[in-house]
Amino acid sequence: MDLQEYLPFWQDLTAHQRAVLSRSVTKRTVPEGTLLHSGADDCVGLFLVLHGMLRAYMVSQEGREVTLYRLLERDICLFSAGCMLNSVDFDIYVEAVQETEFLHIPTDVYQKFMQDSLPVARYTNELMASRFSDVMWLLDQVLNKKLDSRLAAFLLEESDLQGTPVISITQETIARHLGTAREVVTRLLRYMAAEELITLSRGQVAIKDLKKLETLAADSRR
Amino acid sequence: MDLQEYLPFWQDLTAHQRAVLSRSVTKRTVPEGTLLHSGADDCVGLFLVLHGMLRAYMVSQEGREVTLYRLLERDICLFSAGCMLNSVDFDIYVEAVQETEFLHIPTDVYQKFMQDSLPVARYTNELMASRFSDVMWLLDQVLNKKLDSRLAAFLLEESDLQGTPVISITQETIARHLGTAREVVTRLLRYMAAEELITLSRGQVAIKDLKKLETLAADSRR
Repeated sequence: MDLQEYLPFWQDLTAHQRAVLSRSVTKRTVPEGTLLHSGADDCVGLFLVLHGMLRAYMVSQEGREVTLYRLLERDICLFSAGCMLNSVDFDIYVEAVQETEFLHIPTDVYQKFMQDSLPVARYTNELMASRFSDVMWLLDQVLNKKLDSRLAAFLLEESDLQGTPVISITQETIARHLGTAREVVTRLLRYMAAEELITLSRGQVAIKDLKKLETLAADSRR
Repeated sequence: MDLQEYLPFWQDLTAHQRAVLSRSVTKRTVPEGTLLHSGADDCVGLFLVLHGMLRAYMVSQEGREVTLYRLLERDICLFSAGCMLNSVDFDIYVEAVQETEFLHIPTDVYQKFMQDSLPVARYTNELMASRFSDVMWLLDQVLNKKLDSRLAAFLLEESDLQGTPVISITQETIARHLGTAREVVTRLLRYMAAEELITLSRGQVAIKDLKKLETLAADSRR
């Protein structure tokens, strides 16, 4: 495991700290759909993605999900160890969107480092600021964009992530990402298909008119 | 200025750091309505509230505001020094809701401390986690509560802050807090007045039926 390659603070750790970290970090691979972290009671530790993709989301009282951010290669999930910070009082869920290989750093190990090492504490500040920015972006979207525009932006992002204009995704999954009901997504997708922005088939959404979709994503505001 | 009383990390600073901080911190008083921080280009430093109240908000492209959190006595505004953190890519505005006395810590001074002092870096982590929790609460509200419920919750909070059931506030101001248009707020307030939850007069909203308002705030969900 090339920890020095993934952890920017590695070079600033003492030999003892490096030994502790190397001993406690484990590499794991989980299949698509695995729930890695579930709410506040569960404080399993940090996940550093090597391959694949994790999704962090929150769940409303009625069980509706909304995606907060997605973690790709080299990204670190901090809030699955949220109990390290006294001031964290929200629940986050983390699941593997596809088969994912990741490094797991136990909460107590990282917490000790955060208390002892200035470079780790500073790194944690940047990590949190980065996720904060993700959530502020989402808040801006939710407050200021209509759902059709958020859906267009989501399809473009998903197409980028999958590296193809033909996106493999169910309407149920899209609804969970956007924090809305499947029926609402179905209605919007049908509308977009009628407008020839996309074509629909079972389990797939194909981008047909990229330019129009980009326009919709950019400026259709409430 | 009793810096040791307000800054939990004071006792962990070196004598030199304490001298630097004491020299650079200034106490200021600004009248109601003063804009203390305006977006990303403006990175004026941290504000520690002594008396009064600050409001941090964001502004959409169309100029619509939404309140992110409010800062009362002993609260610290971190993101008015957001440029300290590379990963912060959102704009925050900060204004004085009422006449406010605060301590100002210049950005470069705090940034240096954050780089040099583990207690300051750890304190910053907690500070950020606390604001993160505020914004996650807001996101949950926006995603999962209808506007009438958010308005009811806002009136209850405002009544608490003002320490009276007769709230002095304009409909324009309420709209800015909730990130919606004044016309929408007017309609909802009139509805609530018709339902005898509140009574309306010029520049004032009086809570009439506390219990019903609390019920509306708690469980009217989308």
